[in-house]
Amino acid sequence: MWYIMAKKFTVGVIGAGRIGKIHIENLLRKIADANLKIVADVNINDKLRIWAEEKGVLKLTSDVNEIFIDPEIEIVVICSPTDTHAKFIQEAAKAKKHVFCEKPIDTDIKRIKETLSVVKKTGIKLMVGFNRRFDRNFMRCYESVASGQIGEPQIIKITSRDPAPPPIEYIKVSGGIFLDMTIHDWDMARFQAGSEVDEVYATGAVLIDPEIGKAGDIDTAVAVLKFKNGAIGMIDNTRQAVYGYDQRVEVFGSKGCVVADNEATNTVRIYTAECTNIDKIPYFFLERYMESYSAELKRFFECLSKNIEPKPNGEDGLQNVLVALAAQKSYEENRPVKISEIEK
Amino acid sequence: MWYIMAKKFTVGVIGAGRIGKIHIENLLRKIADANLKIVADVNINDKLRIWAEEKGVLKLTSDVNEIFIDPEIEIVVICSPTDTHAKFIQEAAKAKKHVFCEKPIDTDIKRIKETLSVVKKTGIKLMVGFNRRFDRNFMRCYESVASGQIGEPQIIKITSRDPAPPPIEYIKVSGGIFLDMTIHDWDMARFQAGSEVDEVYATGAVLIDPEIGKAGDIDTAVAVLKFKNGAIGMIDNTRQAVYGYDQRVEVFGSKGCVVADNEATNTVRIYTAECTNIDKIPYFFLERYMESYSAELKRFFECLSKNIEPKPNGEDGLQNVLVALAAQKSYEENRPVKISEIEK
Amino acid sequence: MWYIMAKKFTVGVIGAGRIGKIHIENLLRKIADANLKIVADVNINDKLRIWAEEKGVLKLTSDVNEIFIDPEIEIVVICSPTDTHAKFIQEAAKAKKHVFCEKPIDTDIKRIKETLSVVKKTGIKLMVGFNRRFDRNFMRCYESVASGQIGEPQIIKITSRDPAPPPIEYIKVSGGIFLDMTIHDWDMARFQAGSEVDEVYATGAVLIDPEIGKAGDIDTAVAVLKFKNGAIGMIDNTRQAVYGYDQRVEVFGSKGCVVADNEATNTVRIYTAECTNIDKIPYFFLERYMESYSAELKRFFECLSKNIEPKPNGEDGLQNVLVALAAQKSYEENRPVKISEIEK
Amino acid sequence: MWYIMAKKFTVGVIGAGRIGKIHIENLLRKIADANLKIVADVNINDKLRIWAEEKGVLKLTSDVNEIFIDPEIEIVVICSPTDTHAKFIQEAAKAKKHVFCEKPIDTDIKRIKETLSVVKKTGIKLMVGFNRRFDRNFMRCYESVASGQIGEPQIIKITSRDPAPPPIEYIKVSGGIFLDMTIHDWDMARFQAGSEVDEVYATGAVLIDPEIGKAGDIDTAVAVLKFKNGAIGMIDNTRQAVYGYDQRVEVFGSKGCVVADNEATNTVRIYTAECTNIDKIPYFFLERYMESYSAELKRFFECLSKNIEPKPNGEDGLQNVLVALAAQKSYEENRPVKISEIEK
Repeated sequence: MWYIMAKKFTVGVIGAGRIGKIHIENLLRKIADANLKIVADVNINDKLRIWAEEKGVLKLTSDVNEIFIDPEIEIVVICSPTDTHAKFIQEAAKAKKHVFCEKPIDTDIKRIKETLSVVKKTGIKLMVGFNRRFDRNFMRCYESVASGQIGEPQIIKITSRDPAPPPIEYIKVSGGIFLDMTIHDWDMARFQAGSEVDEVYATGAVLIDPEIGKAGDIDTAVAVLKFKNGAIGMIDNTRQAVYGYDQRVEVFGSKGCVVADNEATNTVRIYTAECTNIDKIPYFFLERYMESYSAELKRFFECLSKNIEPKPNGEDGLQNVLVALAAQKSYEENRPVKISEIEK
Repeated sequence: MWYIMAKKFTVGVIGAGRIGKIHIENLLRKIADANLKIVADVNINDKLRIWAEEKGVLKLTSDVNEIFIDPEIEIVVICSPTDTHAKFIQEAAKAKKHVFCEKPIDTDIKRIKETLSVVKKTGIKLMVGFNRRFDRNFMRCYESVASGQIGEPQIIKITSRDPAPPPIEYIKVSGGIFLDMTIHDWDMARFQAGSEVDEVYATGAVLIDPEIGKAGDIDTAVAVLKFKNGAIGMIDNTRQAVYGYDQRVEVFGSKGCVVADNEATNTVRIYTAECTNIDKIPYFFLERYMESYSAELKRFFECLSKNIEPKPNGEDGLQNVLVALAAQKSYEENRPVKISEIEK
Repeated sequence: MWYIMAKKFTVGVIGAGRIGKIHIENLLRKIADANLKIVADVNINDKLRIWAEEKGVLKLTSDVNEIFIDPEIEIVVICSPTDTHAKFIQEAAKAKKHVFCEKPIDTDIKRIKETLSVVKKTGIKLMVGFNRRFDRNFMRCYESVASGQIGEPQIIKITSRDPAPPPIEYIKVSGGIFLDMTIHDWDMARFQAGSEVDEVYATGAVLIDPEIGKAGDIDTAVAVLKFKNGAIGMIDNTRQAVYGYDQRVEVFGSKGCVVADNEATNTVRIYTAECTNIDKIPYFFLERYMESYSAELKRFFECLSKNIEPKPNGEDGLQNVLVALAAQKSYEENRPVKISEIEK
Repeated sequence: MWYIMAKKFTVGVIGAGRIGKIHIENLLRKIADANLKIVADVNINDKLRIWAEEKGVLKLTSDVNEIFIDPEIEIVVICSPTDTHAKFIQEAAKAKKHVFCEKPIDTDIKRIKETLSVVKKTGIKLMVGFNRRFDRNFMRCYESVASGQIGEPQIIKITSRDPAPPPIEYIKVSGGIFLDMTIHDWDMARFQAGSEVDEVYATGAVLIDPEIGKAGDIDTAVAVLKFKNGAIGMIDNTRQAVYGYDQRVEVFGSKGCVVADNEATNTVRIYTAECTNIDKIPYFFLERYMESYSAELKRFFECLSKNIEPKPNGEDGLQNVLVALAAQKSYEENRPVKISEIEK
């Protein structure tokens, strides 16, 4: 009797921080096609070493080049800090390795374009980690829209609220709410609309913490998007929803409307003499989106196996940053801004 | 120009208590075909007189015979105490007037049968006020079952819980929980099952108030019904659900399941740092079932206009009492009891 | 024995069209303090005459002056076409009669201000018929916000979608979507925010019917509001939601979030091998908002009895039109517009 | 720097069928305290060998004695066929190894008692795999009841419906629906009630497949339980709910009611011109209860670490079988049956 085993892809991971660890565990346990060979991280300490050993990481190195020069490695998963993404993508591409890179590619348009040009020239596949597309609810929403069930999408509404603001130190280097937080929502809006953004009007306020204002940022933001296909998008963000991580998507179309609500902590309702109680929604993105991380990697490996272009790809990475920068300009100048203004 | 007006039925109402007042208001305001001529009540006082005048009652009398002898009156609506129902139905029937009678017809099987025999002989139409059939939710449930959407009904589940027990004095003369409270559920189960009950097993306990036990009754009751079409029914009752008036129906069938939940007080959800709050369900039957009272009367008038047999009719009134008495016997003897045991 | 009866207010109604009929029925049946004496309508025909008689209207006249000169009449309810509102309010005020007027007071700022000045001078009470404030769900939402349960309101989101567009002939004289349809939402946003609008950005598109575009209007509209208290509002409108009349309100605050969802047609869920089905939401405003019409009138009579200022009042009527005109300008010039620009 | 590692328990697993594989994967990946050393299965083939290797099983043997004689092994997880459970529990106990055993211990009361006596004598810990107690929804329900939030439990209702019947060959050796399927519900009812069953009335019918009837079993079953604390239980089962795996629990008490509904496949609602659609509930127990399997094992290891008695334990295993046998007798004799009748 014979058992044919599927081709496995040998993988190197760069960066073993919070998000890196998630990808490493998924590669080890949930992606049957993955053969994780090397994990590179510039900060290796005993704690990381023990974690890696327990999880079954074969090789841990502080030298990222071991990944690029290893001829067995076909895929590089980049989870290092944002300012290294462009460099590592380019190096991986030049070494003819496919790349899964955490978002964003970069925050500088010129640098993103230069990186995408290298990607194109080398013919490798690049997927960017906008994991929310793979959330079962938002994916189901997308399927409904893409299948034509609700007709032409006309209004896309995204509610995206964090349970608590990050530390001020983080805010200061985050690039601003539109690049740091709304970036996921630009991507979700484009994903659901099935079209690119033509113009954005964004505004906001400091309503949560004056320190965020002092750091030059806002903590509450809303935006109106005009898509090239005529649809209109609406996004609202806040850094602090005390009741939990509020993540909803709604697409209204000519034949109906599809609404993806928050995941519940459980299905229990408690009826008392005062009211009906339902537990709070799950607290943060690790709880809400955990499954989406393995789903996006599975999809990436499937794209490689079947030789199809992964989505979201480099172009998505670029477009999302373009919209973010337009939103920032719109907020600063209090006027709608065309994406073409930024692109130039 | 001509405006054809629909035929109106002239109506007399017997009994202007709580439920009588509801029917009177509906006849005056919501039943376009009704022409309410006389209201008879043995206890007329100033308060009732003022109420009647304000509502627009044309004639208030303490002599019920004024209704029976009035040749214009075609319909008698009986809302007097239970022990007068059989007598008034028979008198109305003999006077060739159609009857809408509040439930139950009587609690004595022989008397019910005698009354139905008079009804049959005179050829009048009789509808019995099992108003819950006309609740929009339970009616929608029934339509789903009757249309075959969920296939053959196999399990019928009814939850029927009062918010607070009635006074002990009421309990003492109520005839027991199975005749007083579950009577609505026997009817609902038969309505949804589309079949008659063959056997019932009922049990219960005194869990709410020991005084109810001392009065010879129970305050918590459950029953299992076997229907002639093979379906099984389950009912649970309690005299006190502190969170409100809990009224639900579920029909499980070979092709699906239909569930009618409680009506909400409003659609508002309040999300806070602790939990999600929803307001309590409406408190009691006047709030929950108000619309069903006008809906049942409308249906009765429609049946008269179109000359079709109204449902629930006298036979339903009889069957529901048979099941109640079988349930009482089952509880007392702690064994399943066939309806045929009681019928004899 | 004595029964003290509450003071009744004698009322005259101007206009017996669709909305007038609703108010007339409520005055006759649901407002215990109301004594409807005269209904005036310029177009009296047999159909209206029969309707009025059946409902119990005592006097129907085509001469509106009969109302203004009748010394018994204390309240005038104005349901005539919009272009007559200002005139009739002023006449009623001069005759020292309180006024309940359908929205809007007028579409011309100068005319509204002139009317409010007459109201102020005469000291009468004026309530404007923004009935949605009295919808049980939006009222419950407001109560939660006003009680401080969700803290400071920060984001107010309103979804307001009609099931089908009105006839093109109506569109042409409607004053545009921002004055005709969004007017209710400006009011709802201000109501929930507890603050006046400082700036509005509005945009939209013709996505439903090109004829609406040819008539110089749009059929899909969104707006972002900045309130004086720092809160941000978001509104989306469409003339056609094929799944029904979609009316939702959400207020996000520093301590929580309150969401008022659509009313359901019933509470039934049908589970089949394919999916779970729930019936469509109710079709249009008469079904959704019917109770709010009697609730607003009740509140108006309560204000008169207790001598308190009714809300929404003339100032609300003015503010809503100011926002609508600012939104129209914003849409035309594709830029945020301050209310103060319009006010001047 | 020192990293203290928690004590690990060395584990042997008997049986690598469907449920065995689930426990093996959980022991390898989700139970940090577990050190899986040996898996024994009487039927080792290439497919199992490859599966075991891929998952990282260190040793696979067809000789179960390797587990019992291995002095390092402290815990035996028994997933072999039911008729071997009692024997293996006894052998493990005699070898001083703690046991986690799949349900049921046995279907013969005498044999269960004999086994529990060995367990008691040797002082090992025994947990029985009634995994549904660890479902997040039913656990949350239990927490609410156990905390007193809903007062004294008075009515416990369990809906437990399979999506499709098992093969007839399975039915024939299953021991009947009350031992095979309802066994989980007896346990759940006892768990939620916090009390033992005193009497059971069970009935049922063949409504799904006549072949099940020919095999001497029923496919639709309902039961009424009387608990020693006065609470009443109601259970309904069917072998075929075409809309999915329907698993709900409701506990009604003196201070409120807690309802645990089905898990949803996703949170998406699709509104169309016809109705609102929600996807079907998840299909079967592997989807619904997967997390409960790791949760129960985690709890077992926690009990061992902290030296506390695990629940559900051998006594629970015994009680559930007693209730099942009483239910079977009740069904056959169509009368309520006391547990004490069976116990003797």
